[in-house]
Amino acid sequence: MTDWETSISSSGKDAVVRGEELEDVMEMDFSDAIFLILKEERPEKEESEMFNTILSSCIDHGVGNPSTVAARTVQSGGNSMNTSVAAGISALGDKHGGAIEECMELLQSNKSGEKIVEGKLEKGEKIPGLGHKVYKDEDPRSQKMLDKAENLGLKSEFTEKMLKIQEIFGEEKVDLVLNVDGAIAGIMSDLGFEPELGKGFFIIARTPGLVAHVREEMDEEDFRREKGKYVEE
Amino acid sequence: MTDWETSISSSGKDAVVRGEELEDVMEMDFSDAIFLILKEERPEKEESEMFNTILSSCIDHGVGNPSTVAARTVQSGGNSMNTSVAAGISALGDKHGGAIEECMELLQSNKSGEKIVEGKLEKGEKIPGLGHKVYKDEDPRSQKMLDKAENLGLKSEFTEKMLKIQEIFGEEKVDLVLNVDGAIAGIMSDLGFEPELGKGFFIIARTPGLVAHVREEMDEEDFRREKGKYVEE
Amino acid sequence: MTDWETSISSSGKDAVVRGEELEDVMEMDFSDAIFLILKEERPEKEESEMFNTILSSCIDHGVGNPSTVAARTVQSGGNSMNTSVAAGISALGDKHGGAIEECMELLQSNKSGEKIVEGKLEKGEKIPGLGHKVYKDEDPRSQKMLDKAENLGLKSEFTEKMLKIQEIFGEEKVDLVLNVDGAIAGIMSDLGFEPELGKGFFIIARTPGLVAHVREEMDEEDFRREKGKYVEE
Amino acid sequence: MTDWETSISSSGKDAVVRGEELEDVMEMDFSDAIFLILKEERPEKEESEMFNTILSSCIDHGVGNPSTVAARTVQSGGNSMNTSVAAGISALGDKHGGAIEECMELLQSNKSGEKIVEGKLEKGEKIPGLGHKVYKDEDPRSQKMLDKAENLGLKSEFTEKMLKIQEIFGEEKVDLVLNVDGAIAGIMSDLGFEPELGKGFFIIARTPGLVAHVREEMDEEDFRREKGKYVEE
Repeated sequence: MTDWETSISSSGKDAVVRGEELEDVMEMDFSDAIFLILKEERPEKEESEMFNTILSSCIDHGVGNPSTVAARTVQSGGNSMNTSVAAGISALGDKHGGAIEECMELLQSNKSGEKIVEGKLEKGEKIPGLGHKVYKDEDPRSQKMLDKAENLGLKSEFTEKMLKIQEIFGEEKVDLVLNVDGAIAGIMSDLGFEPELGKGFFIIARTPGLVAHVREEMDEEDFRREKGKYVEE
Repeated sequence: MTDWETSISSSGKDAVVRGEELEDVMEMDFSDAIFLILKEERPEKEESEMFNTILSSCIDHGVGNPSTVAARTVQSGGNSMNTSVAAGISALGDKHGGAIEECMELLQSNKSGEKIVEGKLEKGEKIPGLGHKVYKDEDPRSQKMLDKAENLGLKSEFTEKMLKIQEIFGEEKVDLVLNVDGAIAGIMSDLGFEPELGKGFFIIARTPGLVAHVREEMDEEDFRREKGKYVEE
Repeated sequence: MTDWETSISSSGKDAVVRGEELEDVMEMDFSDAIFLILKEERPEKEESEMFNTILSSCIDHGVGNPSTVAARTVQSGGNSMNTSVAAGISALGDKHGGAIEECMELLQSNKSGEKIVEGKLEKGEKIPGLGHKVYKDEDPRSQKMLDKAENLGLKSEFTEKMLKIQEIFGEEKVDLVLNVDGAIAGIMSDLGFEPELGKGFFIIARTPGLVAHVREEMDEEDFRREKGKYVEE
Repeated sequence: MTDWETSISSSGKDAVVRGEELEDVMEMDFSDAIFLILKEERPEKEESEMFNTILSSCIDHGVGNPSTVAARTVQSGGNSMNTSVAAGISALGDKHGGAIEECMELLQSNKSGEKIVEGKLEKGEKIPGLGHKVYKDEDPRSQKMLDKAENLGLKSEFTEKMLKIQEIFGEEKVDLVLNVDGAIAGIMSDLGFEPELGKGFFIIARTPGLVAHVREEMDEEDFRREKGKYVEE
């Protein structure tokens, strides 16, 4: 049985991560180590700064979303930190952080921006990365990311394609702000990450928030009970 | 219903994390943002460096441990990134990363090092934080952490208590190396973290490794089948 | 590697469950098959009837409890049936269905009813299996179970001990109804099940309810958002 | 907040399941109660017998498959019954029990058997419900189910369509046995269940097996370690 092969890491005396000795990895900033383990290479200085911004931007977004509710609810059933955080992460499905991955797929596909918008309009589907409940003119957080990407010389092909999609959609249908998912998808693609990691990256960024919520819930009463109502069909 | 109150974060236009505006958090290194969300304050420069080392040291330890096996096995059943990582995290129970938390509890209890060793010897239990399968004289990784803590002026009460426990246990029973769990437990305690976050901190550090493993498994054949054997009772 | 040994079942041509051929198991009622796989023997006719009643009594209890909320919330994040039901089951911790297991442990311990009540009173702890939010005189469901156990000739040592505990507690402190957890714990113990299966049995009984809830949630809007409130510490 | 509406069940004094009083549900066989909660009506006598056979046939299939490995591995990390069973259930993804659901979708689609086979052949995809690793001429378990369905007068439209697909595929490409997934998909469809419940039904049937495996694993050593190998990329 040699099924369990990996090129990610080893343990024990000669422990390595992506070919680098664990003791050297211990000298790296955590976000650089994340970059290394996902991309199989260390980030350049500019990439490192950009990556930190993206991760920090997703660390937590309030208490009412499904992942937070799931994590805290499971804790309230009398469960451990790991069980509760796991439930929170399992909530991060297609409708919860999934826009980043879908958007990266579109951007990295060989379809042009025009074709992408056309296809979405035909099917009557939303374009991931566009639109915001609150911001109508500009989302200051995605703008901050774009500015930083530009200043660091990292704004490239895929971010431009995202902006092009936004422009075309504005001409064809309606002006929508580029939201944080769209900015992240563009920049992560420009950093060389594949779409398959879009959700994984969001999971990494959000886990500290979930840990904090589960810790906070430990001080609340056990067995949260929501108001429910039975309705005869 | 005002049940879902939190002091961790909010979303929307005035989004904050622990009282800081999200746009300011986006300027923070990810590990500093983690420190902020868990400890409710930004780290000092020295604390930041130490915290990075601790997080990076736990990022991944090979493919054969329960969390990695669980995450990859669940992926192989035809599951998404979030479902698979969640299974990996759920595996991080009392026997898997749990020594940090148990050790922090002991160190932050009001029992002296002598009493702790005595109690463990009486019950015939292991002391968390001591002993290593491979290293018999010194664990170079925990030593590296201790050196860094000392150099940064962060080695204090709890790390000293841990070393005292090691010393007493050596006199009473047998010399064991201080392992990484013990070093982390001491330093995290000196950084002011409570034991309830010991496992949460390990979860945060290990999640990137789990994401990498699930991504790697996506390129493997579906439906991993282990060799099993039925034995009549 | 012969690690993965089991005496539960095998697959393939000679598939068995607890020594019985799978094709014979297919002729069994599902609850009898559950009894077989957990207890390593088929139930007697009376045990079978009792076991059905216990399982059916736990199948679902409304929408507001943690397991249901967790399962439905995870589904609303854009997740599959298996991921969502798993989150619901993970919510079934010490405070959610845990009373059965704790009660079975007490009943099957070598402490007398008197000692158990005494110990609980000293520590100021509740006695699992006693008390109900709504019913003050008698819980009609636990009474139904007790009557059935009696009629089937299955009410024995452990159920009697449970009733004794109720009586002593009434004399020492306050009259409380025997609730369903207490009735199940007593009867399951009399059926010869060990406490380690108390929670597992509840999981089995509740899974169909969780499946129904996840299915129902699929017709609801995606991404359930609870009302949350940020409060400055 | 009246978000949490359900037509499945209520709790408390007037507890019901699908409109039936909980105390009446307690008199039902567990499998009948499952039928009720999923299909919103009690089964006829023949449906009840058939449903029992289907559920019992899936109760457990050895130790080496992903759900069992995931559940036991998570337990070995030092976790509770509920956390471990949840991990096992989360493993039941598209490649693990997913054929039933996919097959029910095909059967209940408005495509004819000819069109279905044609479409699958064009795309070079497998037909769910056909083929078996071990059985080449006949799968005795699916045959048993079909015979029972016929004898009970329950073999109808969808099972016939499944057999038709098998026949056409044999003529067009190669003879494959109808496997258990195919038999279950046909019969469940004939019983009036929708495809969305295909996986849920399998989860219900397999949960007792997972509970038994987690219980068995509790007696094994903690922290299962698989043999892994690091390979430089």
